[in-house]
Amino acid sequence: MSPADEMDFVTIVAIAPKIRRREISPVELTQACLNRIERRNPKLNAFITVAADLAIEQARAAEVEIMRGDWRGPLHGIPIALKDLIDTAGVRTTAASALYKDRIPKEDAEVVRRLRRAGAVIVGKNNLHEFAYGGSSLVSYFGDVRNPGNLQHIAGGSSGGSAAAVAAGLCLAAIGTDTAGSIREPAALCGCVGFKPTYGRVSARGVIPLSWSLDHVGPLTNCAIDAAIVLQTIAGYDAADISSAEVPVADYLSGLCDDVKNLRIAVPRTYFYDDLDGNVRSAVERALEKIGKLVREVREVRLEVSEDRTVQAAESYALHAENVAKAPELYQSETLRRIRSGDKYSAAEYIERRRKLDEARRRVHELFAEVDLLVTPTTPIPAPAIIELKKDPAALRPTELHLLRNTRPFNVWGLPAISVPCGFTKSGLPIGLQIAGPPWREDLVLRLASAYEKTGR
Amino acid sequence: MSPADEMDFVTIVAIAPKIRRREISPVELTQACLNRIERRNPKLNAFITVAADLAIEQARAAEVEIMRGDWRGPLHGIPIALKDLIDTAGVRTTAASALYKDRIPKEDAEVVRRLRRAGAVIVGKNNLHEFAYGGSSLVSYFGDVRNPGNLQHIAGGSSGGSAAAVAAGLCLAAIGTDTAGSIREPAALCGCVGFKPTYGRVSARGVIPLSWSLDHVGPLTNCAIDAAIVLQTIAGYDAADISSAEVPVADYLSGLCDDVKNLRIAVPRTYFYDDLDGNVRSAVERALEKIGKLVREVREVRLEVSEDRTVQAAESYALHAENVAKAPELYQSETLRRIRSGDKYSAAEYIERRRKLDEARRRVHELFAEVDLLVTPTTPIPAPAIIELKKDPAALRPTELHLLRNTRPFNVWGLPAISVPCGFTKSGLPIGLQIAGPPWREDLVLRLASAYEKTGR
Repeated sequence: MSPADEMDFVTIVAIAPKIRRREISPVELTQACLNRIERRNPKLNAFITVAADLAIEQARAAEVEIMRGDWRGPLHGIPIALKDLIDTAGVRTTAASALYKDRIPKEDAEVVRRLRRAGAVIVGKNNLHEFAYGGSSLVSYFGDVRNPGNLQHIAGGSSGGSAAAVAAGLCLAAIGTDTAGSIREPAALCGCVGFKPTYGRVSARGVIPLSWSLDHVGPLTNCAIDAAIVLQTIAGYDAADISSAEVPVADYLSGLCDDVKNLRIAVPRTYFYDDLDGNVRSAVERALEKIGKLVREVREVRLEVSEDRTVQAAESYALHAENVAKAPELYQSETLRRIRSGDKYSAAEYIERRRKLDEARRRVHELFAEVDLLVTPTTPIPAPAIIELKKDPAALRPTELHLLRNTRPFNVWGLPAISVPCGFTKSGLPIGLQIAGPPWREDLVLRLASAYEKTGR
Repeated sequence: MSPADEMDFVTIVAIAPKIRRREISPVELTQACLNRIERRNPKLNAFITVAADLAIEQARAAEVEIMRGDWRGPLHGIPIALKDLIDTAGVRTTAASALYKDRIPKEDAEVVRRLRRAGAVIVGKNNLHEFAYGGSSLVSYFGDVRNPGNLQHIAGGSSGGSAAAVAAGLCLAAIGTDTAGSIREPAALCGCVGFKPTYGRVSARGVIPLSWSLDHVGPLTNCAIDAAIVLQTIAGYDAADISSAEVPVADYLSGLCDDVKNLRIAVPRTYFYDDLDGNVRSAVERALEKIGKLVREVREVRLEVSEDRTVQAAESYALHAENVAKAPELYQSETLRRIRSGDKYSAAEYIERRRKLDEARRRVHELFAEVDLLVTPTTPIPAPAIIELKKDPAALRPTELHLLRNTRPFNVWGLPAISVPCGFTKSGLPIGLQIAGPPWREDLVLRLASAYEKTGR
């Protein structure tokens, strides 16, 4: 067994300096991840494709560079996984669907290009809900992902495989996508960090879309500092992606050291704190107490939340209309039902809702006139048991709406929002705390997340 | 008769220094415009509302300020008119429709606010095509606008009243809107300058929309320098308008003095030069010869033009759907027919076309990899005779498509494009030359337009 396999290599921030100092070999580190995947993935089902040979090849190249003194930065030689709707040249990218099960992209997605340029090692492609539909639906052509905290529970989704892989240490970070909570919700349920940046912050080019106006690409990691490291690499303008915005990227890592004692925190108790599981409520209240001691003030606010889902439904339908007509049998029936629910909208209805969404985004900075950050539970409940959802399919949809209730508004507003672990239920299931900030202020969100982490959860 | 009434006061650049030096009184200048309106408007029908008392009041206030040495800039005390779909607090804004014939806005549009802050005098509201539909349609609840060059011909549209008022000297500038050519086409047909800036450059807040993704607000003036002066005042970010973009505004006036001898001009002969009226062809070729002597090179290019109008039709329908269902009798039949043509689109169809439009805009800068500006005829034909269109309504639609053929692509691309006069037909009808540039490079467009003007047309 290599030294890398023995140690706790769960965070990038801890391991990157050792790679730089040549104390850890990227090849050994990658092999250790591959070993863990081999050992644990059969039960977790967090990967659709493991690119072992390619990963070792990339790790060797990183090792050669580092040995000759060309260290590229904190992602150099770090094993990372990608939700399997992020295109990888030459490696199949399935969106967990029968339709794309043999689809091999010719080009890397822009985020993958940036990760490779930073020297990251791509170990494989994570399982997800078919075409990224939903937060609890048990629909992947490649089977359900299991929660590493308790295999009888869902991992959440749609980036469930990414969250499970990171939380179980099968890789040091993963890239997911989030249209209504699909990064933050599984991160909360599996017990890792999941960060959805501002809409337009990270290029979505080469990522199979779910709903253009709401899709966000972001990292899943084992601590807020790692989220800062990965975001630093993938953030930034991409002229070829129409959702990408030309807004300067801050230095997230150095920002983490800044003080939080002047921050004003808002707690939107109405809506976001309604109907909480008792375990979630007490974990979040404990977190708020700790945060209260770090910052200038914690105050209650009231937020108006629109629950309209026309934009998402219509855009998802637009993406799938042709395939759904041609080959409905290649979709899981639940996915098909959801896609078809977007069939009924006219252009005029969509245009009106899309305007409202665009207007809400233009006004959203007003939320932050007198506060700096918002804090809520990421999910009102912990990960449901798979058997409960399977024996009562009628409960699936309400459960999912409840699971995504607190995350979805931040997709509508396009605001940066992170989920960080904030404790466990009595039965040991992870609980997540959501911190959200003003547009483009990922630095601020990361700063509080990191300060909270340091309190020792 | 006042001195102001006798002189040639047709350009702002000539008159503003005299106002500053107190050689011309804003009150006398405004009164002179009002006199001209009284004399000429009954035939031209360029105004729906003349706000004589309010204008004189504003002119008096300007005069007081200037007399005490508080000159605000080149628009101070300058009589300007507004297309009657631009909201004016307390002054009716009708969109030339029966539906809005008594509509009195509570707030000024953002452009009006900026004009007032610059000290401009609002003399009245210009006639237009009902709800800004079309370039030749004879549909205003307040009757047809006539071409000041020849009253038997159309003024074009939809900003026909604005173009006629400026060309006839009833005001020194006007603000129009342009969704497919509605500023440039009437400017060309009436013989003045019309400038559609980059999409997002001028706030559209408080302007009754036609099609959100294609609507542009811009000036009509009697020379390119005046267009620069007015644009300088109205350009700039408006956070409350979702189409407005946060892009720095150049100093357009000082840019006019820069050299044009390094500019590379592209002539897209295919499409834009097809089926030209002989008078138009020879005027434009003469203009190209003159321009050729000013710049570094003139070369042919080929542009791909999409003639799809789904986005415009669907967005226009979305805006009117409710009123059209409730009170169809309040629309002119031709307008109703056009609005209803947007009824048939599904959300999926709109989303797909809107994506294509957004993508085309993202890529459009590539047109300018090797050239600086594009030059085309503004319209392939001069102003049609009203009687011709009336006796053959079947000719109306094809004529209009032809009239807007060369202007519409620049709305799709969102590029800045100006029309400047470049001569007359044998029968004395004006002809326009269109100059278009890269996104946000209004300065470049104005520079060539002004240099060309100086050649003496």
